[in-house]
Amino acid sequence: MKNTRVVLLRHGQSVWNKENRFTGWANVPLSEQGEAEARNAGVKLKEQDFQFDACYTSMLDRAIKTSNLALEQLDSLWIPVQHDWHLNERHYGNLQGLNKAETAQEFGDEQVHVWRRSYDVEPPQVSDDSKYYPGNDRRYEGIDHSQIPHGESLKDTYDRVLPFWNGTVVPNIESGSDILIAAHGNSLRALIKYLDNIADEDIVDVEIPTGSPLVYEFDEQMKPVKSYYL
Amino acid sequence: MKNTRVVLLRHGQSVWNKENRFTGWANVPLSEQGEAEARNAGVKLKEQDFQFDACYTSMLDRAIKTSNLALEQLDSLWIPVQHDWHLNERHYGNLQGLNKAETAQEFGDEQVHVWRRSYDVEPPQVSDDSKYYPGNDRRYEGIDHSQIPHGESLKDTYDRVLPFWNGTVVPNIESGSDILIAAHGNSLRALIKYLDNIADEDIVDVEIPTGSPLVYEFDEQMKPVKSYYL
Repeated sequence: MKNTRVVLLRHGQSVWNKENRFTGWANVPLSEQGEAEARNAGVKLKEQDFQFDACYTSMLDRAIKTSNLALEQLDSLWIPVQHDWHLNERHYGNLQGLNKAETAQEFGDEQVHVWRRSYDVEPPQVSDDSKYYPGNDRRYEGIDHSQIPHGESLKDTYDRVLPFWNGTVVPNIESGSDILIAAHGNSLRALIKYLDNIADEDIVDVEIPTGSPLVYEFDEQMKPVKSYYL
Repeated sequence: MKNTRVVLLRHGQSVWNKENRFTGWANVPLSEQGEAEARNAGVKLKEQDFQFDACYTSMLDRAIKTSNLALEQLDSLWIPVQHDWHLNERHYGNLQGLNKAETAQEFGDEQVHVWRRSYDVEPPQVSDDSKYYPGNDRRYEGIDHSQIPHGESLKDTYDRVLPFWNGTVVPNIESGSDILIAAHGNSLRALIKYLDNIADEDIVDVEIPTGSPLVYEFDEQMKPVKSYYL
């Protein structure tokens, strides 16, 4: 039996990445460069004869668009694509929308560094009437409000990504499907922490390049046996 | 309780429509004009405050791309989209790929007219080794071969669209979902024949404009009470 493969794909540049603003769950579109990165990822996968049986993305346009553009290059627009909030970016609470330099000016470099680089420190929380509280967005209507974040640490993100991985993605891999996951810097960090068993203090420094397909191969016991960027 | 709404959207111009060739299940992309038609459909729907809870498309890129482009205009890329072969275009058998003028020259105007405008006459069938036999295409691997067409009459198309409508779409409408269906001239004709109770000899003359959202409103008994183009 051949190894099954999962490809993790971090979306390319968004309009806010370009402006150096905290994005999180804000639904910011890809920049032109970000769209080109997504198409290039599809071309690379096609050159290596990758084919997928299913795709998972977050509920955010920049990840969905990334998968659509990559799948189009692979002649695979027709495969089932599931959009799920568990794959969303880390919710950056009240930092969302702020320019990173301005945030540093307001809260101090050290505090911002703690928020960005600690594993379990949460950012300032949004209130229920904030435009950044996902409970006010139609796309999250179906979700139990107790599960909707007001601002997450990387640990909080890990704690929601993992049940989705184990409960939804793994059974599909075990049935023999090759899978593409298009998501975000921190939701993919959470997955990589789990797959490569990386310590809390080390995972925050792992940088995942945008638009570069990251391949994991699994044996029959779902042990990752190999991983590499294309 | 408000009426639930289904919007039927026929994809815009494909590269082969432009060249006047029989397309059927051949996976021909939208032309630039076809892409613009899809975006315009999304803009029209947005102007009228349409929002959808789910989308169904065929397995063919031109319908999937149409729904992706329209949903992007509606800020609704995140809704669940299901790709299903039951919504595919009528399979045009051995006419697929042929220029319509050439077909007339080879088979005679009258025969071509019969194939295009009769309800239950099948076109010349493709053989199992034809590149136009869907059983040779990875995207239809999961389908029982006894169900895969070699060339369909409009009646054959009707006979596969209807079970999908009644078994998959209707239960979703009944649960209160507003639905977008992006599909093809003949799979939508089949639906309209059913919804408006149109006679066999009349349905073949019903022309559905491309890129024009066709709205059906249903009462609680799933009776269509109103239909109109946007």
